[in-house]
Amino acid sequence: MMSMVDGRAMEAQFEAFRVQLDDSGAVRERLRTVVADLDNVIRMMQASLLPVHHATLQGKEVLDKAKSYIPSLQKIYSQLSEIIRERPGQYYRYHDHWRSQTHTVVFLLAFVHWLDTQGLLSHREVETLLNVKSEEFSIDIEDYLIGLCNVSNELPRYVVNRVTAGDYDCPRQVSAFLSDLFSAFRILNLRNDLLRKRFDGLKYDLKKVEEVLYDVKIRGLMSTQATANPMES
Amino acid sequence: MMSMVDGRAMEAQFEAFRVQLDDSGAVRERLRTVVADLDNVIRMMQASLLPVHHATLQGKEVLDKAKSYIPSLQKIYSQLSEIIRERPGQYYRYHDHWRSQTHTVVFLLAFVHWLDTQGLLSHREVETLLNVKSEEFSIDIEDYLIGLCNVSNELPRYVVNRVTAGDYDCPRQVSAFLSDLFSAFRILNLRNDLLRKRFDGLKYDLKKVEEVLYDVKIRGLMSTQATANPMES
Amino acid sequence: MMSMVDGRAMEAQFEAFRVQLDDSGAVRERLRTVVADLDNVIRMMQASLLPVHHATLQGKEVLDKAKSYIPSLQKIYSQLSEIIRERPGQYYRYHDHWRSQTHTVVFLLAFVHWLDTQGLLSHREVETLLNVKSEEFSIDIEDYLIGLCNVSNELPRYVVNRVTAGDYDCPRQVSAFLSDLFSAFRILNLRNDLLRKRFDGLKYDLKKVEEVLYDVKIRGLMSTQATANPMES
Amino acid sequence: MMSMVDGRAMEAQFEAFRVQLDDSGAVRERLRTVVADLDNVIRMMQASLLPVHHATLQGKEVLDKAKSYIPSLQKIYSQLSEIIRERPGQYYRYHDHWRSQTHTVVFLLAFVHWLDTQGLLSHREVETLLNVKSEEFSIDIEDYLIGLCNVSNELPRYVVNRVTAGDYDCPRQVSAFLSDLFSAFRILNLRNDLLRKRFDGLKYDLKKVEEVLYDVKIRGLMSTQATANPMES
Repeated sequence: MMSMVDGRAMEAQFEAFRVQLDDSGAVRERLRTVVADLDNVIRMMQASLLPVHHATLQGKEVLDKAKSYIPSLQKIYSQLSEIIRERPGQYYRYHDHWRSQTHTVVFLLAFVHWLDTQGLLSHREVETLLNVKSEEFSIDIEDYLIGLCNVSNELPRYVVNRVTAGDYDCPRQVSAFLSDLFSAFRILNLRNDLLRKRFDGLKYDLKKVEEVLYDVKIRGLMSTQATANPMES
Repeated sequence: MMSMVDGRAMEAQFEAFRVQLDDSGAVRERLRTVVADLDNVIRMMQASLLPVHHATLQGKEVLDKAKSYIPSLQKIYSQLSEIIRERPGQYYRYHDHWRSQTHTVVFLLAFVHWLDTQGLLSHREVETLLNVKSEEFSIDIEDYLIGLCNVSNELPRYVVNRVTAGDYDCPRQVSAFLSDLFSAFRILNLRNDLLRKRFDGLKYDLKKVEEVLYDVKIRGLMSTQATANPMES
Repeated sequence: MMSMVDGRAMEAQFEAFRVQLDDSGAVRERLRTVVADLDNVIRMMQASLLPVHHATLQGKEVLDKAKSYIPSLQKIYSQLSEIIRERPGQYYRYHDHWRSQTHTVVFLLAFVHWLDTQGLLSHREVETLLNVKSEEFSIDIEDYLIGLCNVSNELPRYVVNRVTAGDYDCPRQVSAFLSDLFSAFRILNLRNDLLRKRFDGLKYDLKKVEEVLYDVKIRGLMSTQATANPMES
Repeated sequence: MMSMVDGRAMEAQFEAFRVQLDDSGAVRERLRTVVADLDNVIRMMQASLLPVHHATLQGKEVLDKAKSYIPSLQKIYSQLSEIIRERPGQYYRYHDHWRSQTHTVVFLLAFVHWLDTQGLLSHREVETLLNVKSEEFSIDIEDYLIGLCNVSNELPRYVVNRVTAGDYDCPRQVSAFLSDLFSAFRILNLRNDLLRKRFDGLKYDLKKVEEVLYDVKIRGLMSTQATANPMES
């Protein structure tokens, strides 16, 4: 039978655990509050991008509006960083709190960048835009890659809407971009997990865009300039 | 359309990702190999403890056999530590690989300790036995607590078998221990997760042991010496 | 474009495939017919064993009735063997057809054997009873082990019914048998599959039987002869 | 109760099972390692074929690059064969380990062959290319057929991209090939399983290609030479 001394030692130990579990609980509470703000900014930034599917003029205005949320994102990620920096080595302990939101943030930044430049926003550029690169807090590579898959998933709808709006060169641009992205993903040795599953969707996106490109081509709607320019073929 | 320069930059970036993902995959592969060894040692240590439920003599021999596996556990946890130490700050990234096995290891060590001393093996003592306490690799507190829940789950069966074997004082000892453990868990502010669920099981274990204690008492089977000694009540 | 020659070669190849697939389909059809007979015999043999849970006298008669189905089982397994022997190396191609039935057959044979002798029917004895041991057709070890798990699952109910019928020595016999069986399974390095899952159930069966043994002991119902005989302790 | 002799016999039997289960586990471990290599080669070979959808010139170069992986495939299949050859009659016991990868390998080889010759790669030719035909290790016919279904699934996308690139004769070639393939599958008496399900997809692929052919024809884009030559119709 346990002596009373043992009982007190047991209690003392659990009292120490309580402090640590409460501390960890407090971290999670702070993270939840910050991530709730993040959800808000994401929602508004997504809303600001809706017109790209329908505006006749692509509009620097629309992109400027979307980019105007970047400082808010920076502020929120700096709050996340600060919380995690106080707990060295525990980034992955709390990663789940901001993981899915980060997928969407990467999507938003990379989609805006693509609309702006038709190029790929690099992982380093995401970290620069969010101002997060440090020893203790960075953007996980797999989160970045899933964000890119989200961009891919958005593009077929975008292409369909652009063509409807009379922009017949869009399918060629998107098809080239997705084809490059698809090839790049092929470099990776993906294990059978979430990322692999998301990658499998890329092929479907590419195929869909190629079908739109086909429709445009077969009807002779593509600009002759585009097909004639050997630098772009 | 992406320029060729962009296409190459994309490829270079993904090539770098490939290296990092492959590196992380190699870590997981190494962890899996070590954890397979851990599974083996756990299995043998569990087998060595089976006689405690049936041996007429409790047997220092049985406990010595069980303890003889501790050096093997130390070796395996030192291998885990070594792999993780090479990746500062990524303990929780790979934690899932050894989590469930660690629950069982804590159970085995704490059960052996209880059989030996009727006392609780502390978190610090678990780390000392496994020789793991360091900045980079320690036993997560929640894993330790779940291991204790496993001890609790084992005790009703143990009590039933001890009484069957004629050891009528065992229920009182176990009931006192579980009652203390239950009180100690009550100190914690458990969230609605695995640990809370496991804690809910403790109450059932305690109730079951108390029923055995009742059966023994009501039939006048408990030793009068034991009930008469106020120091042990 | 394919030439006509190619079209004909394609057709010739598929014609050959048709023959092979039809042949394999015919094998499956024959197996299905034989396994339907097996289902019938299993059902009758199971029915013949129902009285063991309730008969006051265990009854050589009941066991003899159950054993009377063994020749039918032999006949059916010899038909299975014959079909598979015609297809060297394809035992595991068609294994699924008789797998689950074989679990039950092993259960029935091993349960009858236990009722008869309180001992374990070995894998070799199963093959001898079914008259199947050959190069091309044998009883898969995992199927045998799952059959034993089924025996374990049956024993708690059996013990409860025997005690109800006034046989107070039964729990001790069964507890000893299950405890040995549980220890024996611990020797195996089970992977995380069906067999491992079934093994996890053994512990529950053992615990249940131990509780019945406890009930009998605490009420002083066990025969003193049994507890006094050191050869059986 | 079991005698001690029985307990020891039980243990001896399970010790023998342990050896056999461990041996089978070791086989699976070796297969997993080899199949991980296979995944890598498949990934690279798939990447090498991506340009066929977009290159203006079909490019012997692209096909040569793809074919350059065949020796690696041969090496890996010879390793699989070697492992299985040590276990006569157990090909189908372990078949699941390489089944899905073999579907993709057949797809890759047959697609390259079609790009090269517009003809169908036969089952025998697959085995010759992989250098596997032996008593103990061959390519399962159903795996070959599923690989062909994968070729069919790839062709609509290929046709769409070829037409977009201005190759208006491609739809007719592909339509003829798929039509022959569809007829050939019709010869088979498919059961209600994976293969039947995949075959159902063929019809959709053929329909899609025929629609492209229609689009091209209705717009007068097909070369008159092609339609005029009766040898190719």
